[in-house]
Amino acid sequence: MDFITGFRKKDTHEISDILESGFTGNVKINGMIHTIRDMGEFAFLVLRKREGLIQCVWEEGKINGCVKDLKEGMTVLVEGIVHQEERAPQGFEVLLSDIQILSSPLDGCMMPLPISKWKMKTSLETKLAYRPVSLRNIRERAVFKIQEGIIRGFRDFMFSQQFTEIRTPKIVAGNAEGGANVFKLEYFGKKAFLAQSPQFYKQTMVGVYDRVFEAAPVFRAEKHNTTRHLNEYTSLDFEMGYINGFEDVMVMETEMLRYTFAFLEKAYEKELKILDITLPKVDKIPSVRFDAAKVMVSEKYNRKIRNPYDLEPEEETLIGRYFKEEYDSDFVFVTHYPSKKRPFYAMDDPTDPKFTLSFDLLFKGMEITTGGQRIHDYGEQVKKMEARGMNPEDFTNFLMIHKHGMPPHGGLGIGLERLTMKLLDEQNVRETTLFPRDVSRLEP
Amino acid sequence: MDFITGFRKKDTHEISDILESGFTGNVKINGMIHTIRDMGEFAFLVLRKREGLIQCVWEEGKINGCVKDLKEGMTVLVEGIVHQEERAPQGFEVLLSDIQILSSPLDGCMMPLPISKWKMKTSLETKLAYRPVSLRNIRERAVFKIQEGIIRGFRDFMFSQQFTEIRTPKIVAGNAEGGANVFKLEYFGKKAFLAQSPQFYKQTMVGVYDRVFEAAPVFRAEKHNTTRHLNEYTSLDFEMGYINGFEDVMVMETEMLRYTFAFLEKAYEKELKILDITLPKVDKIPSVRFDAAKVMVSEKYNRKIRNPYDLEPEEETLIGRYFKEEYDSDFVFVTHYPSKKRPFYAMDDPTDPKFTLSFDLLFKGMEITTGGQRIHDYGEQVKKMEARGMNPEDFTNFLMIHKHGMPPHGGLGIGLERLTMKLLDEQNVRETTLFPRDVSRLEP
Repeated sequence: MDFITGFRKKDTHEISDILESGFTGNVKINGMIHTIRDMGEFAFLVLRKREGLIQCVWEEGKINGCVKDLKEGMTVLVEGIVHQEERAPQGFEVLLSDIQILSSPLDGCMMPLPISKWKMKTSLETKLAYRPVSLRNIRERAVFKIQEGIIRGFRDFMFSQQFTEIRTPKIVAGNAEGGANVFKLEYFGKKAFLAQSPQFYKQTMVGVYDRVFEAAPVFRAEKHNTTRHLNEYTSLDFEMGYINGFEDVMVMETEMLRYTFAFLEKAYEKELKILDITLPKVDKIPSVRFDAAKVMVSEKYNRKIRNPYDLEPEEETLIGRYFKEEYDSDFVFVTHYPSKKRPFYAMDDPTDPKFTLSFDLLFKGMEITTGGQRIHDYGEQVKKMEARGMNPEDFTNFLMIHKHGMPPHGGLGIGLERLTMKLLDEQNVRETTLFPRDVSRLEP
Repeated sequence: MDFITGFRKKDTHEISDILESGFTGNVKINGMIHTIRDMGEFAFLVLRKREGLIQCVWEEGKINGCVKDLKEGMTVLVEGIVHQEERAPQGFEVLLSDIQILSSPLDGCMMPLPISKWKMKTSLETKLAYRPVSLRNIRERAVFKIQEGIIRGFRDFMFSQQFTEIRTPKIVAGNAEGGANVFKLEYFGKKAFLAQSPQFYKQTMVGVYDRVFEAAPVFRAEKHNTTRHLNEYTSLDFEMGYINGFEDVMVMETEMLRYTFAFLEKAYEKELKILDITLPKVDKIPSVRFDAAKVMVSEKYNRKIRNPYDLEPEEETLIGRYFKEEYDSDFVFVTHYPSKKRPFYAMDDPTDPKFTLSFDLLFKGMEITTGGQRIHDYGEQVKKMEARGMNPEDFTNFLMIHKHGMPPHGGLGIGLERLTMKLLDEQNVRETTLFPRDVSRLEP
């Protein structure tokens, strides 16, 4: 019998003690061998830890053992004296006096990718095939720190606005978004699905907490392999009650983006620098009606409108270009999508029910958000279901909230990986997904 | 074309402006009608918002309209004068001068449950069947605020310890925990599964960021309906590199619990009071070997040891009772579980390979955490797989990390709903799950 009481004094230093706090003198640090440059009489040994890299110097005679016994991928505990050294990439250098091997990679096994290079210059296919290793590259891991920053910024902002965080089920009996892109599941003899969105549940929870959010996986059985679709992605969802219109939702998103980018600038400065990212301005975001946007780009770029009820990806790109050129904005809200293109829970515009009180947010010409006002009235919701040939009895649990009262409400869903992709100017959403799932990719 | 620029000055007050900041005078507030008590000449109207309840007084002649037109579940915008009133349950009262109906529930439809009662005194079955409505009860919603607080405390602590937050796939090709309790899925003609845990991925990410965590859903196709099993639950996972032993993981968990309970005490004081919860002490947590714990309870409670290699639920309860009685501790770490009861990635104790370098954390007699040190050496991992009749070639992606080097590491997974259940002294884990999934429950 023993007691666990809590942290004891650490007997090692962190690399951040040196790089960020400027510690010099005797140190003991652990880390993974990132590179070895053997110069004969001495060798440079670069260690990798979560905070960055630190250069160590192995000098024949000052330390026991042989540098030839070391290899990339080993984890070690080293002792030495750290001092400032302008020529070292990080401005500090550790003169080694002792080294102890904590773990070793498999003997005779080469790294499949040059992860210690600044840019790996490897195809996306190869990077994804060796994801467990390629993520160890300094730039690759900066990508997912930025993504962490976005999700933190989102949550912190939501909490500051009195939203409650919820966790809704991913195994569901019915789906909100409709269509064929649903994963089916055998559930104890019943048919079940993977949730395409938390839509029913987040609306439900508005009746409980007024304002709710969730950042969680959603699943879409999209059969087409494109540069912007994933079969599993992270959706940043929020839903808010007591709105005066769907504009309140767009305002909330604008403020959220502003907060999040400011947070990234402060807390993820290092990673923004590693990836050389300039954050976009979000002091004001243009908002344009769907039908007007189509006309604008048709006229400016001399492009025929083929389908008045849908936006083609190329049109999205052109709308993005238009507002960049005319208003220097990377973002644009497109509002009032046609009713037939929106789900049954979307509120129609009372002044013209062919359109909905809804919006998408485009970022550098790509849709990253879909949102809008929802129907809160029982009769109106049932009527819209019936008009679409749906049976309200299939939605008894969802309709329970309308039956027993709901405030006017609306919300949105943001694709985290797409937002990250556009922020980092990547060309494929798989670049900003830790372990992407697509039609041909189920591993790693 | 328009611009979205950000928040404008609000034209309504929040209930918290009154209840927490003591605002008095003319107010305009919105909310849902929680109860109406019609006294004839006047009526009490209690509004519900996320922050709590506020009592309004409807006095004949001072306001237009008829109180009979109002009903529970309506959302309204009211105007009036707020003043301190000792006899009002919240210490404040609004004398109404105007009321506007924002939305109405379905006509002639009664609330299926007395949600405005302090305690609903309804069976769990009924509460779950009407979950979208029953959650509107003040005590019910406090439960899930506490749960939000736990997850926030967990994350904040992890960030303070330089852990990186990750998002790992829930659709997977193979599973770490083994056994039959896996949900199967058709994935574009391939066989896929729902992740039982993020185990492979969190170990993988230790090679990238040293320390990682995730709070996300996991899926277990458990066929038995018990008071402590769910088929989908939230797992709080962390995994850390450069450990000296699995004790480092237990220390981290102890510190996390301490931080989280302190955070709850500060930020969720209101909800703790609503539910009358006393937080447990976590200044030190006893730690006892699996085999020793079995002997201890066998001797003290005169109970025969039937299976030396497993803990029966009743034994867990008795171990919890033992440490409460002997050491006044609600928590106890049970360490060194038998190897045959732990997954293939668990590190065996070199001094006795029949046991593992692992632990469970029991809270009031129930397992809420499983953790331990993992194998980091390629040869050792392959050998253990082979000894279990597994084919290492089925685990090429996982073994990639061992092949290319991993620090000594370990971690754990905490069942969020179970932790909440024991903290709130509930008897069924469904009480602390928003929308539980079990063998017979796929809705709401």
